[in-house]
Amino acid sequence: MRPIGVFDSGVGGLTVVKELIRQLPHENIVYFGDTARVPYGIKSKETVIRFSIENILFLLKRDVKFICVACNTVSSFALPEIKNHFRVPIVGVITPGAREAVYATRNKRVGVIGTKGTVKSRAYEKEIKQFDPQVKVTAVACPLFVPFAEEGWTSGAVVTTVAKHYLKPLKVAGVDTVILGCTHYPLLRKIIQDVLGSNVTLIDSAKQVAIEVNEILSNEGLLNKKGKGKQDFFVSDNPEWFSNLAQRFLGKPVRNVKKVNNV
Amino acid sequence: MRPIGVFDSGVGGLTVVKELIRQLPHENIVYFGDTARVPYGIKSKETVIRFSIENILFLLKRDVKFICVACNTVSSFALPEIKNHFRVPIVGVITPGAREAVYATRNKRVGVIGTKGTVKSRAYEKEIKQFDPQVKVTAVACPLFVPFAEEGWTSGAVVTTVAKHYLKPLKVAGVDTVILGCTHYPLLRKIIQDVLGSNVTLIDSAKQVAIEVNEILSNEGLLNKKGKGKQDFFVSDNPEWFSNLAQRFLGKPVRNVKKVNNV
Repeated sequence: MRPIGVFDSGVGGLTVVKELIRQLPHENIVYFGDTARVPYGIKSKETVIRFSIENILFLLKRDVKFICVACNTVSSFALPEIKNHFRVPIVGVITPGAREAVYATRNKRVGVIGTKGTVKSRAYEKEIKQFDPQVKVTAVACPLFVPFAEEGWTSGAVVTTVAKHYLKPLKVAGVDTVILGCTHYPLLRKIIQDVLGSNVTLIDSAKQVAIEVNEILSNEGLLNKKGKGKQDFFVSDNPEWFSNLAQRFLGKPVRNVKKVNNV
Repeated sequence: MRPIGVFDSGVGGLTVVKELIRQLPHENIVYFGDTARVPYGIKSKETVIRFSIENILFLLKRDVKFICVACNTVSSFALPEIKNHFRVPIVGVITPGAREAVYATRNKRVGVIGTKGTVKSRAYEKEIKQFDPQVKVTAVACPLFVPFAEEGWTSGAVVTTVAKHYLKPLKVAGVDTVILGCTHYPLLRKIIQDVLGSNVTLIDSAKQVAIEVNEILSNEGLLNKKGKGKQDFFVSDNPEWFSNLAQRFLGKPVRNVKKVNNV
């Protein structure tokens, strides 16, 4: 009955929690959002690694059986360096999203959108090439999408104009599949789909990582088979802000968010 | 010849450094930008106070004679609580901006724009009421202005639409003076002026705080009278990102940015 640990730089990882609850309703979840230091997407690899280790140590103190990194920047920058250092399995969002994109593409042209950190790391491209070296990857950073999602600007002329600007290289490249490489982006899914056109398949890494977690827990015999899972939420700052935003990302309100110091 | 210490959550405080160099060309400046934890504007009072104390301790180790808080959020949230705890004078951007706004308004209706933290603190309003209790203050948060400034979206339809949305309450209130209550906002000055109309006076707190620093240093006999001042820049993350953005905020390139741990 030990919980699954999930962490993110802030509130975006709740889109992963939403999928975990849907696909693994019997699991208990401990979530940590590093809201005192959010966002990670503009920060250096070295700093993201340091923050990630501190977050993992916090989750291990809560006796988690498994850690899910619900942040593309952490998965890109930190995970390859640290995933084998700890006593529980750790999965990120890159591999599941990359695998699904390779499976989905018909013309072998895949687009990736994410933070500057994620794009700079080329993590999705490297992972996609592992699955199929023939696939051509075009990645673009969309730095305004995170503040848009957090401020609730998810439709209208402003977001459409910015989305058209950001997504132009993907249209030029003729991709037929695009990975939403940031946990905030599912909130902008409709506008991204409208700009790219209905013939482009969008891959939501939140959904894919939950499938992967399910598989690993099954294989390791760690799956909870009964009971209704509960969720505990911890943040390093601003529990009220987190609670208010949670509805938008999780699709239900979050209560009893506890503020803790993870460092 | 001891330097002036200046700190900010990130790069925005360089608009204050620009004014200090212009008005106090003989002073040496040590700047610290907390780029590992930027931004502060969405974070709680308690956390902003903790970060500010850590930044002040870093500057004191560099033997500064004076500290200038080049961040409206810190000036609003932290400064009233901590300004008398240290062995050097500390000034923020609120008092100089508030004083100038009271001086400038003719109809006694002043607008304030800033981060959520600055607006929530009501710091400008309290300060303005000290100078003139008759002045009516309307404050609005403009959370997308910081990412716009940092991403270089400082003109065009997108920013104009968002600015019209944010600034509407100020137009309704009939303010004739508006304080740019965030160090990033001078980069959006033209668009803010266009939306508000040319009969509204914009108060740039960066400019006003440099006037205040000049006065205090003169009164305390701490002013450097000769020599060309030099600037040293320290950040807690991403020195290259800081260097790249610096041109936009400081109006000249910044080299030799050093990464340090302030905690």
